[in-house]
Amino acid sequence: MTILVSNDDGIDARGVYCLIDRLLKYGDVVCVCPDSPRSAQSMALTVASPLRIDRVDDYHGAKMYKVNGTPVDCIKLAMHTILDHVPDIVVSGINHGSNASINVNYSGTMGVAFEGCTFGIPSVGFSLTDHSADADFTPCLPFVDAIVEGMIRHGLPEGVCLNVNIPATTRPVTEMRLTRAARGNWSDEYREYTDPHGKKFYWLTGTFTNFEPENEDTDEWCLAHDIVSVVPQTLDRTAPVTSGIEWLRELSVNLTNKA
Amino acid sequence: MTILVSNDDGIDARGVYCLIDRLLKYGDVVCVCPDSPRSAQSMALTVASPLRIDRVDDYHGAKMYKVNGTPVDCIKLAMHTILDHVPDIVVSGINHGSNASINVNYSGTMGVAFEGCTFGIPSVGFSLTDHSADADFTPCLPFVDAIVEGMIRHGLPEGVCLNVNIPATTRPVTEMRLTRAARGNWSDEYREYTDPHGKKFYWLTGTFTNFEPENEDTDEWCLAHDIVSVVPQTLDRTAPVTSGIEWLRELSVNLTNKA
Repeated sequence: MTILVSNDDGIDARGVYCLIDRLLKYGDVVCVCPDSPRSAQSMALTVASPLRIDRVDDYHGAKMYKVNGTPVDCIKLAMHTILDHVPDIVVSGINHGSNASINVNYSGTMGVAFEGCTFGIPSVGFSLTDHSADADFTPCLPFVDAIVEGMIRHGLPEGVCLNVNIPATTRPVTEMRLTRAARGNWSDEYREYTDPHGKKFYWLTGTFTNFEPENEDTDEWCLAHDIVSVVPQTLDRTAPVTSGIEWLRELSVNLTNKA
Repeated sequence: MTILVSNDDGIDARGVYCLIDRLLKYGDVVCVCPDSPRSAQSMALTVASPLRIDRVDDYHGAKMYKVNGTPVDCIKLAMHTILDHVPDIVVSGINHGSNASINVNYSGTMGVAFEGCTFGIPSVGFSLTDHSADADFTPCLPFVDAIVEGMIRHGLPEGVCLNVNIPATTRPVTEMRLTRAARGNWSDEYREYTDPHGKKFYWLTGTFTNFEPENEDTDEWCLAHDIVSVVPQTLDRTAPVTSGIEWLRELSVNLTNKA
């Protein structure tokens, strides 16, 4: 059993070491992380500059590498250059901060899991809703075990990976639910500054608003109620057939007939 | 009518000027592009460094801005800082290169469209299957008109944007179809080099393989047959209920009962 591990907080983040310590009992762990924090890198790839792979000291028996690229670069380089065989599972995290709701789209942690999915490997991203560098990851660990054991035993359907968010709370976390991503978005997103030369610059900040806080089947509702959320996420983003795009179908026919 | 335009090839790419020229007849165009090429940036956000907005010369009446960030940064800054009202539609491209199949996930062009979607704005990304800087975008233009006119008249369902890929071919392109993303992936992805100091580095390259070339309902099939592909894409990546995750549901119940 080979487990490929990565993250988006980089090779120095505590979350990935807590994760590795929990995974070593399942098999060989190969960890390939960005050499510095790469939060919110989504599925970004480095296409216009060279990438380096540096082997660093083993950690408790896990082979450790760092890459001067994005989380997805790490997985692609692991698959094509570092590993000589396909890993059994890909595990990402544990992220310092939530990746629930719309944030799955921006998340480098989940970029890793989606990229694992492109190779047909059962893949999961774990996130704790605490951004601090010294976050306590202990509440995550029973859920890491439960999910990883299940993935090893049962696999996952093709094109589906898991987005697991764990609430950071002082109360015991004992419940887990299969949910869906809540609808929501960010507002007031930039703080404006003026540099010493009088020129403005902007820094991303913002407030997240859950558009459906009452809906118990969502990830955000679970996290707000100290429940672990598991969202199965799809690599294929083709929209299901919906009302409201009939005009597109007609347009296709009309354009074609006119030709 | 206000049209927000962006791309991932940057403010100097020909594709965006061809697009603007075609859009000016529909209303005011505000264009906010990365200051340099940002291909394959997916929905990446700049979180750890400051962003700058620079107004540049108007182009044929369109207001033009450049940002030292990703395509999604451009849309967020446009929404929060540049525009004083919500634009009616968001249009991205015209990209130099295909964004069909799995490439929609890495695409900065489509990052723009997905980000427009987060604000509830009808959004579309256009791509021509020709990476060259001097690509001929003329075959795209009737399809830009048809799609944009349709979006203005009919809108799009919430959470759905459009991924339009146009084949670069010497034959006349007269047909358009609603399709789905073909299953596929990249292989042989990195070229290995040795620097003057004897240290290896890697550069992304690779060959795309279509896993289902015979399936006529896919974007790749259409492009291979000189047909424009329109894939409706979903912002919400929650997987539809599939077989193969029953174990997760049972696991949730068991964990909860054990607690």
